[in-house]
Amino acid sequence: MTVNRTLQKEKTRRLIIGAAFQLLGQDRDYSSISLREVSREAGLAANSFYRHFEDMEELGLTLVDESGVALRQLMRKARQRISEQSDVIRISVETFMQYIYKNPNLFYLLLRVRTGASLAFRKAVSRELQYCITELADYIQQTQGYAAVDAKIQAEAMVIVVFNAGAEALDCKPVELKRLTEKAITQLRFIARGADQFLKVQR
Amino acid sequence: MTVNRTLQKEKTRRLIIGAAFQLLGQDRDYSSISLREVSREAGLAANSFYRHFEDMEELGLTLVDESGVALRQLMRKARQRISEQSDVIRISVETFMQYIYKNPNLFYLLLRVRTGASLAFRKAVSRELQYCITELADYIQQTQGYAAVDAKIQAEAMVIVVFNAGAEALDCKPVELKRLTEKAITQLRFIARGADQFLKVQR
Repeated sequence: MTVNRTLQKEKTRRLIIGAAFQLLGQDRDYSSISLREVSREAGLAANSFYRHFEDMEELGLTLVDESGVALRQLMRKARQRISEQSDVIRISVETFMQYIYKNPNLFYLLLRVRTGASLAFRKAVSRELQYCITELADYIQQTQGYAAVDAKIQAEAMVIVVFNAGAEALDCKPVELKRLTEKAITQLRFIARGADQFLKVQR
Repeated sequence: MTVNRTLQKEKTRRLIIGAAFQLLGQDRDYSSISLREVSREAGLAANSFYRHFEDMEELGLTLVDESGVALRQLMRKARQRISEQSDVIRISVETFMQYIYKNPNLFYLLLRVRTGASLAFRKAVSRELQYCITELADYIQQTQGYAAVDAKIQAEAMVIVVFNAGAEALDCKPVELKRLTEKAITQLRFIARGADQFLKVQR
């Protein structure tokens, strides 16, 4: 394949992915979106679809990957901006909530669609969640000095609570975003402080 | 309508509800289950269905109600068994996890299906979650003496974490149940202790 062809192929692939995210953004369940619709939205014949993805499931798994990667890059950048004096929880939660509010299509899959026609799909979403938890757990372990197992339990509770707030934010009016963000920040402070107290006593 | 007829009608209605829960238990997405299938599973003609429910959406909303009521009754009973000396968090989490592990069909809808074809459906599930949060918040307020708003933020974080553990338990092997239960207990302790510390400082 020539370089041009490779570039063209990648461009078409991105068109299909973009079209699927676009359809998801219209408050649609992934399982209700057809291959024909995605192709039409991408301005392609249904035949072209098959040159890039085997079926809607493979496309769906790709969307989950893309959302997960985008989310982890975002949170990694947020953590880099954090200095010793900053309020880690506030910066992280605000970054997360504002980003998904502006890019809801990217996160419909991860935040809401925790069920799906196939087990493969559900496992992919669960795996992306686990990646987020693992990265946060590493950060907690490094900064707080907890044992890996404790850091993971704390990180999991935090990610679950923030993802839940994110899922609520997808449905909410702009004025609600601030309230949801502050609520999530308080809940994460409870978890962080509780973990600190609990683990201090145990040590 | 005679008493007999009313009883018969209620019996058929229960048959339909039971059939739908049965199908949900087979790892099926609610939106993929047809009216025809539910009727067949209940041993009825599709015509009979319409004498009890307008469509699959109305049946789905009824299932959500039923699951929510069962869950709240369960947690209320658990709290009644709690004396001053007992470990509230452990008893509540163990009760919850064991019950849903034994009755997964009842909870598939509430725990996993947070998305759905219709907004009405999603709102119904979210309303049941809110009922659980409100009841727990009342309990926290009474026992801990926090302000209503703080008790609610704590209760919400706890319910989210426990529901998440419950959703994982539906997929898990029996040996995993114990581990998931202990993890949720630790996470709830973090939240409870953190709230206590956080709110003490604020007071």
